[in-house]
Parts: sequence; structure tokens; C-alpha cells
Amino acid sequence: MDGWQANMILDDGGDLTHWVYKKYPNVFKKIRGIVEESVTGVHRLYQLSKAGKLCVPAMNVNDSVTKQKFDNLYCCRESILDGLKRTTDVMFGGKQVVVCGYGEVGKGCCAALKALGAIVYITEIDPICALQACMDGFRVVKLNEVIRQVDVVITCTGNKNVVTREHLDRMKNSCIVCNMGHSNTEIDVTSLRTPELTWERVRSQVDHVIWPDGKRVVLLAEGRLLNLSCSTVPTFVLSITATTQALALIELYNAPEGRYKQDVYLLPKKMDEYVASLHLPSFDAHLTELTDDQAKYLGLNKNGPFKPNYYRY
Amino acid sequence: MDGWQANMILDDGGDLTHWVYKKYPNVFKKIRGIVEESVTGVHRLYQLSKAGKLCVPAMNVNDSVTKQKFDNLYCCRESILDGLKRTTDVMFGGKQVVVCGYGEVGKGCCAALKALGAIVYITEIDPICALQACMDGFRVVKLNEVIRQVDVVITCTGNKNVVTREHLDRMKNSCIVCNMGHSNTEIDVTSLRTPELTWERVRSQVDHVIWPDGKRVVLLAEGRLLNLSCSTVPTFVLSITATTQALALIELYNAPEGRYKQDVYLLPKKMDEYVASLHLPSFDAHLTELTDDQAKYLGLNKNGPFKPNYYRY
Amino acid sequence: MDGWQANMILDDGGDLTHWVYKKYPNVFKKIRGIVEESVTGVHRLYQLSKAGKLCVPAMNVNDSVTKQKFDNLYCCRESILDGLKRTTDVMFGGKQVVVCGYGEVGKGCCAALKALGAIVYITEIDPICALQACMDGFRVVKLNEVIRQVDVVITCTGNKNVVTREHLDRMKNSCIVCNMGHSNTEIDVTSLRTPELTWERVRSQVDHVIWPDGKRVVLLAEGRLLNLSCSTVPTFVLSITATTQALALIELYNAPEGRYKQDVYLLPKKMDEYVASLHLPSFDAHLTELTDDQAKYLGLNKNGPFKPNYYRY
Amino acid sequence: MDGWQANMILDDGGDLTHWVYKKYPNVFKKIRGIVEESVTGVHRLYQLSKAGKLCVPAMNVNDSVTKQKFDNLYCCRESILDGLKRTTDVMFGGKQVVVCGYGEVGKGCCAALKALGAIVYITEIDPICALQACMDGFRVVKLNEVIRQVDVVITCTGNKNVVTREHLDRMKNSCIVCNMGHSNTEIDVTSLRTPELTWERVRSQVDHVIWPDGKRVVLLAEGRLLNLSCSTVPTFVLSITATTQALALIELYNAPEGRYKQDVYLLPKKMDEYVASLHLPSFDAHLTELTDDQAKYLGLNKNGPFKPNYYRY
Repeated sequence: MDGWQANMILDDGGDLTHWVYKKYPNVFKKIRGIVEESVTGVHRLYQLSKAGKLCVPAMNVNDSVTKQKFDNLYCCRESILDGLKRTTDVMFGGKQVVVCGYGEVGKGCCAALKALGAIVYITEIDPICALQACMDGFRVVKLNEVIRQVDVVITCTGNKNVVTREHLDRMKNSCIVCNMGHSNTEIDVTSLRTPELTWERVRSQVDHVIWPDGKRVVLLAEGRLLNLSCSTVPTFVLSITATTQALALIELYNAPEGRYKQDVYLLPKKMDEYVASLHLPSFDAHLTELTDDQAKYLGLNKNGPFKPNYYRY
Repeated sequence: MDGWQANMILDDGGDLTHWVYKKYPNVFKKIRGIVEESVTGVHRLYQLSKAGKLCVPAMNVNDSVTKQKFDNLYCCRESILDGLKRTTDVMFGGKQVVVCGYGEVGKGCCAALKALGAIVYITEIDPICALQACMDGFRVVKLNEVIRQVDVVITCTGNKNVVTREHLDRMKNSCIVCNMGHSNTEIDVTSLRTPELTWERVRSQVDHVIWPDGKRVVLLAEGRLLNLSCSTVPTFVLSITATTQALALIELYNAPEGRYKQDVYLLPKKMDEYVASLHLPSFDAHLTELTDDQAKYLGLNKNGPFKPNYYRY
Repeated sequence: MDGWQANMILDDGGDLTHWVYKKYPNVFKKIRGIVEESVTGVHRLYQLSKAGKLCVPAMNVNDSVTKQKFDNLYCCRESILDGLKRTTDVMFGGKQVVVCGYGEVGKGCCAALKALGAIVYITEIDPICALQACMDGFRVVKLNEVIRQVDVVITCTGNKNVVTREHLDRMKNSCIVCNMGHSNTEIDVTSLRTPELTWERVRSQVDHVIWPDGKRVVLLAEGRLLNLSCSTVPTFVLSITATTQALALIELYNAPEGRYKQDVYLLPKKMDEYVASLHLPSFDAHLTELTDDQAKYLGLNKNGPFKPNYYRY
Repeated sequence: MDGWQANMILDDGGDLTHWVYKKYPNVFKKIRGIVEESVTGVHRLYQLSKAGKLCVPAMNVNDSVTKQKFDNLYCCRESILDGLKRTTDVMFGGKQVVVCGYGEVGKGCCAALKALGAIVYITEIDPICALQACMDGFRVVKLNEVIRQVDVVITCTGNKNVVTREHLDRMKNSCIVCNMGHSNTEIDVTSLRTPELTWERVRSQVDHVIWPDGKRVVLLAEGRLLNLSCSTVPTFVLSITATTQALALIELYNAPEGRYKQDVYLLPKKMDEYVASLHLPSFDAHLTELTDDQAKYLGLNKNGPFKPNYYRY
């Protein structure tokens, strides 16, 4: 590609952005913006921005409403079932499950498991999420209160060492342990790499960790993300993400001088709504349009955006 | 109360604030802040602020997470059933229902009705909420598409004239119409005050509006709020609201000089979390505490706040 | 009504039948059959039959499928919520509830309460129903295991003294106790009529029973049926029952000599199906018809009956 | 196995029984009974019995409550999701699905799909099952009414040619078609073996059938049972079935002379309850025992059976 020069960066994790910064800083002269997809990459962009080192506008598409809901709530509601079935063939009905973390991922996992007849317990650090769990019909407990009795342990906290060796020591035989949250930090897998425990790979992504007394804990994907390792991502979710990225690229490229400075921006609400509207026809969904009179009454433009930025959906 | 002087205003709707402004502006010299509870009152405060006329700090407690979720989602999930049963004794199983608006109130109504065996359709103007309705298993339609077939029409939009005379003319016999949304504007009740229609009050809060051909539409609470007119508000919800107000009053009163200016503020996230935490013991819910190591990893204070301001819950 | 003579008996409870037997046995000469609606009346008919004293054919409509499902499962799924709200205004979300008995009534109560965010425990004597409760996502416990922690106790067993004074002594303050099951035997209310306990009627159908230490138990309808005392029966359910009775009367009256002997009969499956089919249009439901070829393949008549007598629905 | 002689037959389908009848009728002299597991085998036994040719007692374990519920309702509630995910990775949220047949299998499929956000339509020939579908919140339609709009078609009728070539011709592009019901008769797959349609095997158990205009229908397992072909059966379900068979064998073997004649019997209710009770400990479920007084009141033995034979569960 002789003579080709990049004019936008589309990144997922921030590694590309970092690499260009380190090796080819001159490239930024022609770059009109960065679109970043991941939690980690967004974090790195905000750090650059704070440090005054961000030299082009950047768009955080990770936190667009549509992308968030599909990546977390809707997708995990299905992939928790899929991931557990493909790896363990476990029957959900009647199983006792503890889900660590009742954010969007936890909410999705719990809704699906409850619907299929599992009895679900929640652990939470945040009292607001804990209260939501109560209102949705779940007991909120400390992990130690239920660790001896549960059949499945699922982490979705974004935290580290949520499941420790002590917890693992107290689990009952055949307990399944997996991670739907963040990277591979939530379960302290390292603590299981000790001489007295035997690891037995029973099939791809499934290890039995065997205690001296014969107790087996079923560890999935070695504590990495179950939804990525043992399940699939529906094309519909990929379409939401790709559309969001494409619109962000177009917006940054076409934006008139001065609309975006050398800072990190959320996707404009109106484009977030546009991503959603593009996916409605596949459900044969028909939107209602505001009349002029109604738009005036609500103080809204008939084409949106329809909600204030702080609206929670 | 000779010599007593107000030092805080606790308002719901903004009328008190307005009255003090008009009649006793001097009172504001001693006032340390206003705490406002309602959508309307908050709107009026923001207008005062924009106009540069707000002369003390004000706190918008309407938009605190806990208050919003309980007033809208959790409370309406129960009061829609309660309000309909007390007024009409309708059986929910198998009924076709259209819910106009899939915000927090609509989400609550739909979850309850679906769970009890109703078939629910949604109308929406906002593509993001419409997509949520799809993912939750509801057909998104224009009101005209289903108005002839539904047994119940429920409005929760905050808009006006969502149900028009034309819609009412096309409803089938015995169709129930009620409003869970905003004030009394959503159903065009005025359009039913015409000579060719007969009104028959069949019991408190229940009118039959009778067409010349004998068709009856069952109008509840004359289009005013069903949840307030025909249902009750659980003490638990009142406790959430009152706690939020009390904490906001204390915060404004105790705040060091300069923390709050003459502007409108949201309740600090940490106090929102505190309101939630005070209500957990009634569910025997046990919060997990972060270890020092985990708090450091997440970059959080162990006592919260636990989420960024834009977090959607 | 000079000269009028009864030719059929339509009974609910068996008292009329008993009275005719005792006082006017001659009436039976003109009677072509008895149709009985209730559990108790049916029981009395079977006893008469066993004793060889039944002198006309009788039809047990209590055990028709349609009547059973509507009287128990579908109706109680709604009336448990209605009865509790009208009497106590309790919020269901997050409440801990124990339901004694997981038959049709219990299944209906549990489904509704779970859907509205309650945490439900079950007690059962029958291992098959207990296993169903497990698969539907409920913990199966002995009443003593949870009696100290629950907010609501609901009986639906058909048994007596399921909730004893010992249980009542151990309940926490404000615990609500009610009966959805059988007559007024399930809660041992008599045991609460002792000098050390104070009864306070707080509103119609609601008593606070107060322990010496101030603890209050909220007793609904003095232990009688909540669904009949504090809720309403939808007209749809009455229509199912009345249709079943009418068809049974017509069948017995029109039956050719010899079809029915002096015994107790279940409603013929085909008439049970007919009752159901008469109620489908109100849901705009469209049945599929078997082709000749399909009917032959299945060995069925195209007009039903479609299921063997032991089919469980 | 010199000298070994069979003393019981444990059959699944009836082929073994048939073969012994044909080839080694003398074996029946030592046989104390037949235990039969399947619908088909049971049918053949009843035919033998009617023809007066059954020469030993036989037990129909297919129709035991526990076995039926697990094989059909509980197992299919999970395997419909599993089977669809493993073959197509389809996202369930928002999908329109038609389920043909609302028996136990259909009820299981519908509950799971509805819970995960699909919009489900039902077809039924039996008005009682159709009314159940209404009360559970499903539209009951003829297949033709929705065939153009649905994303997934699932058959669970036990019938033949429920999905015909005409239906297949009218499906939209990418529609998924599969069978959860009976053998391979429900979808008229033969009608798709015509020259104008192209078959493309896209992966194991998944064929795309391609119309001349490019439309593709996704046919799973060539119309054979999805749950057996593309999903797994949890060990818990196998345990239920095996326990039922073992108890039936023991019962027939140990039964005193005369308890069973040369006929087909259902598993005694008490043994059905025993199978359930053996599986309760794995859910840590605790049964309640009747007191003497209660047992007398109910007219029951404290050890069961607890229900009349016609009880529907």
C-alpha cells in the first residue's frame, strides 16, 4: 500500500493507539480521530487525556447505550446458558447458583438462570445494585454463606480474587466455577496450581481440579471469559457493535472543525438512537412518530435525541 | 410559632418555592437550601437557575437512582396489577394489552402483565427503548395496528394526547383505558365529553363511556394517574423517598461553605448508595466489602461511591 | 310454583342433595341426574355410591380439566396478589414467602409471587410435587426451617393444622398469615384465642394478633379462604364453571337410557374440550383442524376427544 | 453365558419383546415380566394385550409421572435452547417463533423461549391445550397466519406433516425449522427433495435448503428430533428414567403371585413417588411428614401414595 496513509484509528483495547504513539507519532498529523471499543482502551484514552497527551479527538463507543446493553445484558443472558451447556451439559432446573456481581452482566445471567428454574444467590459490594437484586427476587449474601451449598459459581464483578482458594477449598464436589466478568482475574486460578491438587483436562475448556480427598471442582476456561471461550457471539450483537463503530468513524471524519477537540467523547445520543433504529426492522418493529404538537409539548425535536444524557434506560 | 424562621425548603412540585419567591423573598436570607422531589418542581428549579434567579443551592432528589427505580419501575410493576384489579376485577391471563411508552414505568407494567399471562404490545418513539422492548419479548407497534384488538390500553409516556378520540372510537367493546404516566394529559378525555357519548359512573373511579351503538369503553380515574387514584403506595417506597429527602436536607444544611453554589445539584452518588444501604436490612441482605487490595485494583474507596455518575443501573 | 317438579339437581357442596334425600326422597322419581360442583359434594356422592344408595346418575364436574385449572391454577395466580394487596398493601418485591403445598393452587401462587420479585419457599409432603417445586426454582423446606425469617405464610394444602401455634409463636413481627387452601382448617386459629394474646381488628378481614412482647402477626380473613374473602372471582372463571355445569345438566338430561347408571361420572372428555372451545373466541384464538390423513395417523376423531383420560395437561 | 436364562425383559421400543415372541417364545416360560420405556413399545404391548396374546405381566413406565415430566417438560425446556444454539448460534431475544403443539414438550419449549425474550405463537388442535396457551400468554394461531413472519418453526405434536411444503415455500429467508416432537414425521422433509431446491450442508446437522430465488430455509437434523440429535440429555434425566425402570423390574420380580396378571400396568403411584423422593437429596430438598392426626384427616397413609390416580400434577 505504497503512499497509503491512515486517517482514522479504529481500536479495541488501545494497543494500536499505543503503538502508533510510540513508533509512528507523525501519523497523527493525518489522523482525524480515534474510535475505541473496549473498557481498557477507553481507560487508557482518558489517562492520555488527563495527561494532556491526547493529540486528536477520540470517541468512547464502549459506553454507548446500545453497545453496552447488547454486549452485556442481552448477550450474557444467552451466553451463560450456552457456555454452561456446551461445556458441562448441566441441567439448570433446581440448581443452586451464586452470581458474584449484579451489574449488567450479572443481571443478564441471573434472569436466564432464574427463568430456567435455578435458585440464584447474589453477592454485591454496591448497595444500589444489591437493592435491585432484592427487588428482582434474589437473596443477597456473602460468598461464604452459600459457598458450601451451591452447584455453580459465576463471577461478573470486574474485580480480582473474588473467588479465592479458601472458597474453592469449601466448595462441594462437582461444583462448577466460571467467569463471565473481566479478563481472567476474578477467580484466583493461580492458587490452584499447587502440588496437592491434581488437574485433569476432561475436554476442551474443562478442567477437573481434584483435592486429596477426591473432591472435584469443575473449572471452565481456566477462569477466562466463559462467554468468549465457550459460547458464541450472535451476529446480531456484532452488527450492533460494528454499526456503532462505523457511525463514530463517520462522525469524527465529517465533523466540522471545532466540534471535537483533543478529548474523549461519548457517542452523541442521536447516533446511539440511530444505531438502534437501524436494527428495528429485523424485528419488524414500528416506531411511533411525535406529532408537531407533542414534540412542542415535550420540548423535543421529532427526530431525537429523545432523552437527556443522564437517562438510565 | 412566633419568631420561628424557616432554614430549609422541602418541596414537592415547586409551589412552595414559587410562593416564597413571590410573597416572602426575604425568607431566602435564612434558607440554606431547597430539596425538590418532583419532575415538575425540578424543571422549575432548572428554569430559575438558567434565568440566574436561583438564590440558594437546590437539590434535585427526583433523579436519584434509588428514588427513581422505586417510584417508577418497582412500584408500578405492582400498582398496575393492583389498580386494574381493584377497579375492574379483570383477569390478566390471555388478555391483549398495549402499553404506550417503554420507559421505567412501562417496563414495570409490562413485566408484571407478561408474567401473569397477558400478551403485551408496546408503542415507542425512542428507538433505543423500542429495541429494549424487542429484546424483552414484546412486539413494537403503532397504536393503530392493535387498537381494534386489545382488551386494555395503558399510557406511560409523559406525553399528551397519546390516546386520541380516533383511537377511542376504534376500540372494541369493554376495552379498559387507563393512564400510569404523567398527570392527566395522555388520554384525550376532553374529546369524550361530547353529546353523542353517554357517561355512566359504575363505581368510584370507573366510568363507562357509551357509544351510540352501545359500545362501552371503561375509563379509569378519568384519565388521571391509576397508580395514585386506584392503588396504594407501599410504605417501603415512601420510606425510600423520605430517606432521600432527609439526607438531602442534612447534606445541604451541613455542607461547608462553598460546596454548593446557587445551582441545582443531583444527590451525591454516595448518599444515593447510603439510602439503598439503609433499606437492605429489611431484606436481610448482606453486602460484601472490598478488601484493601481489591479497592486499590478497582481504584475505589471501600465505602463508595462505587460507580461513575453515568452508570445506568 | 304449583305443580312444578324438579327434574335435575344442580348442587354445590351436596347440601341440597342431602336435604332432598332426607325430606323428599320421592322427588328422585322424577330426577334424571345430579350435577355436583364442589370437592365436598363430590366426596359425599362417592360415599353414597359406595353405600349403594345413589338412586340417580351423578356427574362430578369438579374434576373436569377446564374447571380445575381455572378454579385453582389460573384464578389463584391472580387472586393471591389481589387478596394480599387489598388487605395489606404489602410490596411483593424482595419479600420472603413460604407457600405450604405445591398443588395447583400452590403452583399458581408461587408463579405470581416469584414473577413479582418475592423469594418463595415451599413445603410439601408429596415427593413428586416437591420435585416439581425444585425444577421450578423453589427451595423445598420444612416450615420450621424458614418460619423465623419469612414475611408471608400462605397455606394451600387442603390439610389441617399446617400452621400451628408453635409456628405462630416463632414468626417475626409483621408476618402476614393467610390461607388459600381449604375451608378454615389450615391455620390453627383457635390456638390464638388465648388470654395472653390481644386481637386488634385493623380493618375488614385484617386482624393483628399481638404477643405480650409487642410482636404482631397479621392474620387475614381469620384463616378462611383469602381468595373468596378478600379478592374477587373474575367473570371469566365463573363462565367456565357455569358452562361446565350447564353442559353436564344437558348431557344427563338428554342421555339415552342406559348411558349412565346410578353412579358418579366424570364429565366426558369431549364436553370438557367443548367448554374450552367455547371460551377460545374471547382470546381470538384459532384452532387448527386435523386433516383426514392426520386424524387417521393419530387414530383420532377430527372432532375429539383428543387425549386419553389419563392425560395430565 | 452358558445356561443363563432371562427372567425379565427391559425394553425400549418393543423390538426385543417382538423378537423374543417371534424367535424364542419358550423364553417366556421363565420371564416374570416386561418393563417397557417408550411410547411405541407401550402401544405395541397394549395391542398384544387387546389381542389376548400377552403372556406375562408388563409395566408401562413411559407414563409414570416423574419420567414423563423429566423426559418432556423439564428436559425440553433446556434442550430447545441448547439444540438451537449449538446448531445455529441464533440470538433468542426478539425472535418470532411458532411452536406447533402445546403438550408437555411444547410447554417446555415455550416457557424457555419466552423467558429469553422470544415472541412465541402456538398452534393447537386440542381446545383445552389451546386455552392453556392463552392463559400462559401466547397467541393461538393457525400456522398459515404467521408462517411468513416467523424466524423459527418448532414442531412438537406427535403428528405427521404438520409443516408442509406449502408452509416451507412461504417461510422467509433464514427461517429455522426443527422438530422436538415425534420421530421424523412432523416436517414433510421428503417434499424438499425436489430438483428445483438445492441442499447445502453447512455443518453437521444443519442444512440450508435453497429456493430458486435464493431464499434459504435452515433445516436442523433433517427433521429428526433436535433434542436427541443436536443437544444432550442431562445425567439427572437419565437417572430418573433408570431408577423408574429398575424399580419396575424389582416390583414385577418380587410381586406375590396374583398381584399382576397377563396385562399392561402403570407403575404404582407409590413407586413413582419413591423415584421422586430418591432424587430430592440432590436438591437438598426436605419433605414434610404428615402427623398421625393429619394423615387421618386426609384419609392417607403417612408414607403415601398421596394422590388419586387421576391427579394431574
